[in-house]
Amino acid sequence: MPRYDWISLTTDYGLSDGFVAVLHGVIGQRAPHARVIDVTHQVAPGDVARGAAVLAQTVPALPRAVHVGVVDPGVGTARRAVVIQAADGLLVGPDNGLLIGAAQALGGIRRAVHLTRTDWFASPVSATFHGRDVFAPVAARLATGADPGGGGPEVDPQSLVRLPDPVLVVGDGWVEAEVLTVDRFGNVQLAARAGDAATLPDEVEVSGMLAERVATFGDAPPGRLLLLVDSAGHLALAINGGRAAVALSVSPGDVLRLSA
Amino acid sequence: MPRYDWISLTTDYGLSDGFVAVLHGVIGQRAPHARVIDVTHQVAPGDVARGAAVLAQTVPALPRAVHVGVVDPGVGTARRAVVIQAADGLLVGPDNGLLIGAAQALGGIRRAVHLTRTDWFASPVSATFHGRDVFAPVAARLATGADPGGGGPEVDPQSLVRLPDPVLVVGDGWVEAEVLTVDRFGNVQLAARAGDAATLPDEVEVSGMLAERVATFGDAPPGRLLLLVDSAGHLALAINGGRAAVALSVSPGDVLRLSA
Amino acid sequence: MPRYDWISLTTDYGLSDGFVAVLHGVIGQRAPHARVIDVTHQVAPGDVARGAAVLAQTVPALPRAVHVGVVDPGVGTARRAVVIQAADGLLVGPDNGLLIGAAQALGGIRRAVHLTRTDWFASPVSATFHGRDVFAPVAARLATGADPGGGGPEVDPQSLVRLPDPVLVVGDGWVEAEVLTVDRFGNVQLAARAGDAATLPDEVEVSGMLAERVATFGDAPPGRLLLLVDSAGHLALAINGGRAAVALSVSPGDVLRLSA
Repeated sequence: MPRYDWISLTTDYGLSDGFVAVLHGVIGQRAPHARVIDVTHQVAPGDVARGAAVLAQTVPALPRAVHVGVVDPGVGTARRAVVIQAADGLLVGPDNGLLIGAAQALGGIRRAVHLTRTDWFASPVSATFHGRDVFAPVAARLATGADPGGGGPEVDPQSLVRLPDPVLVVGDGWVEAEVLTVDRFGNVQLAARAGDAATLPDEVEVSGMLAERVATFGDAPPGRLLLLVDSAGHLALAINGGRAAVALSVSPGDVLRLSA
Repeated sequence: MPRYDWISLTTDYGLSDGFVAVLHGVIGQRAPHARVIDVTHQVAPGDVARGAAVLAQTVPALPRAVHVGVVDPGVGTARRAVVIQAADGLLVGPDNGLLIGAAQALGGIRRAVHLTRTDWFASPVSATFHGRDVFAPVAARLATGADPGGGGPEVDPQSLVRLPDPVLVVGDGWVEAEVLTVDRFGNVQLAARAGDAATLPDEVEVSGMLAERVATFGDAPPGRLLLLVDSAGHLALAINGGRAAVALSVSPGDVLRLSA
Repeated sequence: MPRYDWISLTTDYGLSDGFVAVLHGVIGQRAPHARVIDVTHQVAPGDVARGAAVLAQTVPALPRAVHVGVVDPGVGTARRAVVIQAADGLLVGPDNGLLIGAAQALGGIRRAVHLTRTDWFASPVSATFHGRDVFAPVAARLATGADPGGGGPEVDPQSLVRLPDPVLVVGDGWVEAEVLTVDRFGNVQLAARAGDAATLPDEVEVSGMLAERVATFGDAPPGRLLLLVDSAGHLALAINGGRAAVALSVSPGDVLRLSA
């Protein structure tokens, strides 16, 4: 297998402890040629859906890499550790749905491996820090060119745990869509994409407010609710200079109805 | 043009989304030789003045670099994207005042270029994420040694948008100065510099409190309000072991009067 | 002395200002071969004990490095700046106890040097930013292979300032232990280690609550208080899917009694 020059990290470890540095350290020792990109470590503790959304929307912009995801409330239990080989990169992490969207964004799942070869891990493996003891060592080994199949038996990709699909129903003149993410600016990203808005008018109603369809934030006066296509291709609600998530009182997982 | 080995990033993207990683990814793909220093990504959303202050005070300590600044509430509108060539480095970002102070700190503006050459950008360019589609690709290209003039027409540096000068009035025995920044420790940095304090006594009054002039935090007992020259050469109010910004109830943009 | 390829940074600088970037910049200019790992910059301002705990628990996973610690409420006063040579790495920072635990984790103190050679520092040295002017320049010089002894006179390791030992008393069927740290997940790490729990039953009482002894978080139902051995080998209280520090209302420095 070819070597990987890049490793990305997506976790819920936060930046106040030394956990992220430990991953960097393990990788630095085992694959010193690899460069590390931190996607985010600010996923809310245990929020697999959030981690999956950020990872899936970020990987298309990254160099060819081994992508490590660790949002892992089931650490140390029977949940599987896996490597997913996508068309354009490798993903390493728990089998809890975290990696699936990113694998699809990287061209689809070609192969899935259940990580059972303990000589690929640190020894001993702790019960609570598989980022350090399992996922980082495996990622480092893959970055040096090891075949994922060396890490354990291949498993049916259909057997991988998946998150439920987000709600998305498109009607004639209306769209019901789940909130996928709220970003730092309070922009509300919906499960719907540009094409899903074909039958919506230039001004849509949502939660009793009117949103104007525009191309970018500055196309409307400050304070105005906007509907636009965001940089990931999703419909998003935003407020120029404000926080749409606050104005709409929504969080990821909520469902919004856009209508004429 | 010579190659640049370093690129710095200053944004209001926060660290909870994947936006910063996207910039690292774009740079990693287009200028893999370049090393990236994150100045900060915690500028408050759209706070151009804060971004400008942090960037200007940080660049003197950085290696020769292409400095990317993205605090860009006007993204996607008619505001220009520019490269500023300073005596000691390049700056890339929106033409909204963000880069001017840093250019001055790097020896002054030698040339300004309006970025119009779309083949320097990603294709297509989104309306809302010019960090990914414009500024990072341009920075990567400049880091590989491209002449800034290749990015578009040269423009008069006087035409660049500038932030208003901060308030600073120096009298005999008093100084009125705007708060430039409040740092992590609650230290209140003023627009005034060491020389502006020449006529101030050893103890000054500010907002009804007395501040002692000292060299460093530990020169006074805990809880005491202090006036010192900070590491950027500015006058600053501080409290040993406390937060001066809280004690004084001030934020950037407020004006304080120091007097006998 | 051999060269060091890695430098780690642990500070209370936060990520909102440019201070951390300044350290990276100084190192990048003076030791461009070195790669930097950020342990954390989110130590609470001036919280030396917290910085010491994070650093000590992180360094064992890092490559051989020069480790810089800057949690330094006494900056600019008479407190010494030191290099500590441990069996497996170098530590640079203020002589206030911050580095001792890490030195022990790296095999123990072999030599301590009081940094007095001003030509190893930036010139002039500010009174408030020794990270930039003293510790980063010294770390860069050490990374290039300079002997620590060149930085100043050797001092008796016994003369180094030490933090008080955390409270730990082990009885028959009970343990009293200080809270060392609370991590991002709200897990409460105690000064006690696995062996100290030998006489504790499978269910222990702590602060009027019952905690079940388990191997990992998912071994008990959500909401259940757990006692486990954490990834650093310490006893820790946790809640599967919750925050033990909140449930127990404890902070670092508090003392908890575990009993039958």
